[in-house]
Amino acid sequence: MKILIINGPNLNLLGIRETAIYSSQSWEDFIKPLRLKYAQKSIELYDWQSNVEGDIISKLHEADYWVDGIILNAGGYTHTSVAIGDAVKAISKPVVEVHISNIAARESFRHTSYISPHCVGVIFGFGLMSYVLAIEYFILKSKE
Amino acid sequence: MKILIINGPNLNLLGIRETAIYSSQSWEDFIKPLRLKYAQKSIELYDWQSNVEGDIISKLHEADYWVDGIILNAGGYTHTSVAIGDAVKAISKPVVEVHISNIAARESFRHTSYISPHCVGVIFGFGLMSYVLAIEYFILKSKE
Amino acid sequence: MKILIINGPNLNLLGIRETAIYSSQSWEDFIKPLRLKYAQKSIELYDWQSNVEGDIISKLHEADYWVDGIILNAGGYTHTSVAIGDAVKAISKPVVEVHISNIAARESFRHTSYISPHCVGVIFGFGLMSYVLAIEYFILKSKE
Amino acid sequence: MKILIINGPNLNLLGIRETAIYSSQSWEDFIKPLRLKYAQKSIELYDWQSNVEGDIISKLHEADYWVDGIILNAGGYTHTSVAIGDAVKAISKPVVEVHISNIAARESFRHTSYISPHCVGVIFGFGLMSYVLAIEYFILKSKE
Amino acid sequence: MKILIINGPNLNLLGIRETAIYSSQSWEDFIKPLRLKYAQKSIELYDWQSNVEGDIISKLHEADYWVDGIILNAGGYTHTSVAIGDAVKAISKPVVEVHISNIAARESFRHTSYISPHCVGVIFGFGLMSYVLAIEYFILKSKE
Amino acid sequence: MKILIINGPNLNLLGIRETAIYSSQSWEDFIKPLRLKYAQKSIELYDWQSNVEGDIISKLHEADYWVDGIILNAGGYTHTSVAIGDAVKAISKPVVEVHISNIAARESFRHTSYISPHCVGVIFGFGLMSYVLAIEYFILKSKE
Amino acid sequence: MKILIINGPNLNLLGIRETAIYSSQSWEDFIKPLRLKYAQKSIELYDWQSNVEGDIISKLHEADYWVDGIILNAGGYTHTSVAIGDAVKAISKPVVEVHISNIAARESFRHTSYISPHCVGVIFGFGLMSYVLAIEYFILKSKE
Amino acid sequence: MKILIINGPNLNLLGIRETAIYSSQSWEDFIKPLRLKYAQKSIELYDWQSNVEGDIISKLHEADYWVDGIILNAGGYTHTSVAIGDAVKAISKPVVEVHISNIAARESFRHTSYISPHCVGVIFGFGLMSYVLAIEYFILKSKE
Amino acid sequence: MKILIINGPNLNLLGIRETAIYSSQSWEDFIKPLRLKYAQKSIELYDWQSNVEGDIISKLHEADYWVDGIILNAGGYTHTSVAIGDAVKAISKPVVEVHISNIAARESFRHTSYISPHCVGVIFGFGLMSYVLAIEYFILKSKE
Amino acid sequence: MKILIINGPNLNLLGIRETAIYSSQSWEDFIKPLRLKYAQKSIELYDWQSNVEGDIISKLHEADYWVDGIILNAGGYTHTSVAIGDAVKAISKPVVEVHISNIAARESFRHTSYISPHCVGVIFGFGLMSYVLAIEYFILKSKE
Amino acid sequence: MKILIINGPNLNLLGIRETAIYSSQSWEDFIKPLRLKYAQKSIELYDWQSNVEGDIISKLHEADYWVDGIILNAGGYTHTSVAIGDAVKAISKPVVEVHISNIAARESFRHTSYISPHCVGVIFGFGLMSYVLAIEYFILKSKE
Amino acid sequence: MKILIINGPNLNLLGIRETAIYSSQSWEDFIKPLRLKYAQKSIELYDWQSNVEGDIISKLHEADYWVDGIILNAGGYTHTSVAIGDAVKAISKPVVEVHISNIAARESFRHTSYISPHCVGVIFGFGLMSYVLAIEYFILKSKE
Repeated sequence: MKILIINGPNLNLLGIRETAIYSSQSWEDFIKPLRLKYAQKSIELYDWQSNVEGDIISKLHEADYWVDGIILNAGGYTHTSVAIGDAVKAISKPVVEVHISNIAARESFRHTSYISPHCVGVIFGFGLMSYVLAIEYFILKSKE
Repeated sequence: MKILIINGPNLNLLGIRETAIYSSQSWEDFIKPLRLKYAQKSIELYDWQSNVEGDIISKLHEADYWVDGIILNAGGYTHTSVAIGDAVKAISKPVVEVHISNIAARESFRHTSYISPHCVGVIFGFGLMSYVLAIEYFILKSKE
Repeated sequence: MKILIINGPNLNLLGIRETAIYSSQSWEDFIKPLRLKYAQKSIELYDWQSNVEGDIISKLHEADYWVDGIILNAGGYTHTSVAIGDAVKAISKPVVEVHISNIAARESFRHTSYISPHCVGVIFGFGLMSYVLAIEYFILKSKE
Repeated sequence: MKILIINGPNLNLLGIRETAIYSSQSWEDFIKPLRLKYAQKSIELYDWQSNVEGDIISKLHEADYWVDGIILNAGGYTHTSVAIGDAVKAISKPVVEVHISNIAARESFRHTSYISPHCVGVIFGFGLMSYVLAIEYFILKSKE
Repeated sequence: MKILIINGPNLNLLGIRETAIYSSQSWEDFIKPLRLKYAQKSIELYDWQSNVEGDIISKLHEADYWVDGIILNAGGYTHTSVAIGDAVKAISKPVVEVHISNIAARESFRHTSYISPHCVGVIFGFGLMSYVLAIEYFILKSKE
Repeated sequence: MKILIINGPNLNLLGIRETAIYSSQSWEDFIKPLRLKYAQKSIELYDWQSNVEGDIISKLHEADYWVDGIILNAGGYTHTSVAIGDAVKAISKPVVEVHISNIAARESFRHTSYISPHCVGVIFGFGLMSYVLAIEYFILKSKE
Repeated sequence: MKILIINGPNLNLLGIRETAIYSSQSWEDFIKPLRLKYAQKSIELYDWQSNVEGDIISKLHEADYWVDGIILNAGGYTHTSVAIGDAVKAISKPVVEVHISNIAARESFRHTSYISPHCVGVIFGFGLMSYVLAIEYFILKSKE
Repeated sequence: MKILIINGPNLNLLGIRETAIYSSQSWEDFIKPLRLKYAQKSIELYDWQSNVEGDIISKLHEADYWVDGIILNAGGYTHTSVAIGDAVKAISKPVVEVHISNIAARESFRHTSYISPHCVGVIFGFGLMSYVLAIEYFILKSKE
Repeated sequence: MKILIINGPNLNLLGIRETAIYSSQSWEDFIKPLRLKYAQKSIELYDWQSNVEGDIISKLHEADYWVDGIILNAGGYTHTSVAIGDAVKAISKPVVEVHISNIAARESFRHTSYISPHCVGVIFGFGLMSYVLAIEYFILKSKE
Repeated sequence: MKILIINGPNLNLLGIRETAIYSSQSWEDFIKPLRLKYAQKSIELYDWQSNVEGDIISKLHEADYWVDGIILNAGGYTHTSVAIGDAVKAISKPVVEVHISNIAARESFRHTSYISPHCVGVIFGFGLMSYVLAIEYFILKSKE
Repeated sequence: MKILIINGPNLNLLGIRETAIYSSQSWEDFIKPLRLKYAQKSIELYDWQSNVEGDIISKLHEADYWVDGIILNAGGYTHTSVAIGDAVKAISKPVVEVHISNIAARESFRHTSYISPHCVGVIFGFGLMSYVLAIEYFILKSKE
Repeated sequence: MKILIINGPNLNLLGIRETAIYSSQSWEDFIKPLRLKYAQKSIELYDWQSNVEGDIISKLHEADYWVDGIILNAGGYTHTSVAIGDAVKAISKPVVEVHISNIAARESFRHTSYISPHCVGVIFGFGLMSYVLAIEYFILKSKE
């Protein structure tokens, strides 16, 4: 099983930026051990980051050809991008939306998501663990 | 570790009611094997259901004395109950909000939650698997 | 044919409370002769009242097993209860929503109903006669 | 007793138009047997249809001189016509608002009525039976 | 100088309808002496009433060819008719909007007018005297 | 008969300020001939201007003891002052609201008036002639 | 192929009214050469205008029996008429909505259309050429 | 004089819950000395708490038979319960609404109260002293 | 202890103006006996009234140097004055907001207060007794 | 004449994605025969697609130097991009907005366009034929 | 060059009030050295403060006769005063709006300004330095 | 001191595009002399432009490593980009938001900024001089 994590704008700053809200761990420190751990279960974990809305759309299109599932943290674009929402709707592979922070406890413009309605499900507020739970979903699903 | 699942209004109809949106499995069929499985990992799974808003509040108060974590599916009260939100905020044990269906893909009044801001995190859209992911969160968290 | 009338909050005060808006007749004075009259047409009329939102939900669930039709006046919960709306949607028996007063001529928050979309139809403004018209509907329907 | 049914825009298409939402019966097929049936109870049933908002207003004015009650289905004008609402308020005979479909279950702009506040009461969602219940109201009322 | 008064829906009921809000005087009793009085000042007063929105539009078009000024009380259409507003904007003769009652003291949907922006000015709340003031405006204007 | 004209903020700039929207005539040039003209009809015309909201309120209170009617152009306070609206409501003498420009054709925040509901009537859009029409109202009224 | 153009309120003023926004050409000058040109392609072009909302509805009903396509410019009714929208939805022949001016560049109340959702498509902003493009659509469609 | 204090959801947690916003004193520690103090002035102080909306409604009904005044802190139900508002309106005994915290300084959904319009008056922000001031009101009132 | 009562616009009309909503007692008749009564408890009661928003702000600034507490009834400015709210926030002495009438039962624009969030607490609806309860608060507070 | 078609996000999926809403034809299959057909009329058809908002802006700038007209389908950016709207306004060549689907019949966030006010005109709902009609517009225009 | 700084409500408290948000420096300590410094460049700096909205309006009128530029910090009136906005629009001298704090980072009612649209430009968030930048603007402008 | 000016979408058109609203000077003509002038004061001025939202985000991240201050004109993204706002918040160097035109005097969607709350301050409306004032801020700040 191949799972692709797509991270949106500013998520390249993980571990650097506002560590109180997000995480004090850098993305590499987080993802490396996970990649190893899941490899043992024959799950290949890929990750990709971009600050460009259109590139995220293109990546979603491209990934549709080879992944089994996508984990998408579209960052600030979550609340403003009809186009990414359209891309998620257009592709056939299941997408899980995740957020590191509890977006329901932040500014009201973060309570709207153009992406959620087209996802399998949504997980937010658990810090970096939100990603882990999304991976676990794909594993549980594959066992059904 | 003791985890309590609190189910709100109409969730007693699981497996009976609108099985296309929710689940064709009854709650008992779902929870029994889970209870056994997690018991082996020394995790005690409790569950409780009520249609009465005030009783859910009282249960949250009472559970604060003995559980390690709460999984709350407040059903229709999610979108209208300031009082349950206050209860979640008032207690000290972590609460994870779950929903079976993808509430972001349903009526717009289901896009507002008075409970989410006071929870650790939120998981929705994965069917009954939403509950399993919430349990996994508590296990992952305890291992940190 | 078995018809159950479910009355919601404050409707126990009928004949006592704000008799100008509602009715100067008590519920018992109103329902007793009706019960007799319809019994002659082999229609059994049941009625039940509660001030508790959750108990109304439970009653709807339970009634689904034995009634042929439900007449629901959810009082103030009409305008705030997603959960009762969900219960009406969940059960299989037809529900008719009634109100004694003309809710369209009162405060604007009474112009919204979470229950109406899930009912067969809605009747309001005719005083206690709203209930009689709802019963007549079930009789007309059964003759079709 | 003389009762006038006023039908508004597009209701001349009954039995032809969108028969799934409205009715597969034509208006004539529906009203003729009713007219006969009620004639036996000394109730004269009149009906009139127009697509023109202003003509409905004029009809309401004129009918005020000779009817005992009016049943008004203003169709699409229900949600936009302050002027018909004013006409209903201006005349002295009781008006019952009816709709064939459950307007609460359709587009949100159909949830507002400029006419309801000035009517005796409102009945909707019961198909053509909405009209019959309105007639029954006038009979019940006359017996009080 | 030729002045045309155009009265909209329900204004044919003046003196009959809701005399407390509007007027206890009929339109004929009001306009006849005025017609005589102004005739002496070489002012010809014409008046015309219709309940039909489209006929009011046509009348505005037609009057543009022969009147010097128009006094328009569009009744309930004031608050809903983009089309009458367009007609007032389209013609070249000055239009004064009048209302008998103080619309600012009534329902909030009466606080919006699609017609006012295209009129010379607006006069409301003075009872039938609103019309007289509008006539006085045209006389004052002609003397400038 | 004593009539007081109260002018609000910026109206001291008449004839100086934005002469295209308001008037190219100064207030003195406008009011002096009027004062003389009406004096002949035994109508005493007083006028008073202030930029201070609270002073307008005090003037309304004071005028209540000696005027027969008030003409109020509250300028920009029209759209923001609950307190002036309260003052108009509190006094017993009739107040007519006037505006020089057609406020319905300007910014949307000028479409709301806290003062109108408490006035006898409202006249706007006729330039300085709005004041003359208001005076004419008081004369017409006194002749009734 | 028979195509009917239905023009709504104020469109009888084309070439006369606000020629800067609409057109300096009269309707007759525009439609006559078109009628001839398309007749050569065996396309019969009919046109009809009314200021009356209800008559437009009736025309839509009637046309359903004999046209192959309808081009509808409902003018100001576009933004306020639920009833015309219902008529378009009710009939079976394809309707194309057109506007002469760019309604998206005008007042915000012109950005809402009750008619568009029920049309095949919408064309606006091209002046009278909007009609020509709509005709071209029917031709292109018939060739598919 | 008999005064009943009704406390709504989560108020059983006083002294335990969020002591910074509410109070570090428990309800019993607060009410006991008050009960004694007022008993000396022949004022009997009763208190009752429930988390169940419907039970608060029933208590209001029941208390109407024997109390002289009610002090109601409906907690989170204040902002969502049409039904409690209806109950307050329905009974004849005066109700004073109190809140411990300054609800105007908290989330915007706490700025709306369905209960206030039906109360004698409202007191909030004074901590537990809000209750004392409400009692003082009943004493002052009885001395008038 | 020195307490200053600041009364805003129109409150100089107490006992004169709308005595049904406010009070039939004049301010002097109300405050004089209170001043004497509290003087015996060593509480000096001062009062000051102005219709001018800016003067109320200046008074709040000045009072900050010598009072122990302020009771503020800002009348109509309550709902519109960001600047008075800023002044209350800026000073260090506690301010209690009071209103004579139940503002929650009046026009919806009276349900918003720019002042409340910066006050210790709010008391309204008890007639002139609202002021007395505010004084009692300062006494109770000083005894703590 | 040189015409450039600019396609926005996700339109590279034409013929692949949601073929029921959009088209079962791929872009290449659609555009190739058109290119040939119009070449015969000396019309050069260019087309360009990007998922990146900023690249669409740059393309609009660049095209301004060499095209005679632009056909823009900005996809999901239509409803969110002030910046593309600014670009359309900034350039001097005429832009026609097109959409494949009837956006007025889809989610309400698709009813707003930041681009339309700056375009010559708008065409939507005709499937891929929307593009053809836009090309026809440029031809018709050039013949004027 | 003569520049007048107009400070609105509560700005007399600078250095005293909420020094964390505003400034710990008093106005005199700030302005005195500036006055000297700019005097050397032949720039006369005047400053004036008032808490009274109407007095600020009068000052703007008066200053129009002798200043070359105005720097206006209208404090809380910025967000509520149509009348000050009208005054800025009415005068001919350029006005620069300044704020000490970053109003975009504070309560949402501070995000609206009735004054900005009529100013040359707006500067906020730089503490007292906002005033210095405004002065610099006038100098730069004069050198153009 | 190193200052970077980041210009967003369409600002590459300066001096070309809508010169009435923006500027008739090209960016190069404007920035070159400034660069020289400030170099003499040991201030290095850098500038960079992009139409791509994501590239602006990346530039903000990168600049954080070497600049002392950033001047950001995000053009149309100002009003729609949560993601750029997040980037400004995430970096540690001070950012000043500037706009050439007076955005408060343009369309209402330009009155909202997702970026302002995270900036040191905001300067707009002064034409290209807005940039100069922002530079002056950094100089003044460095001298404190």
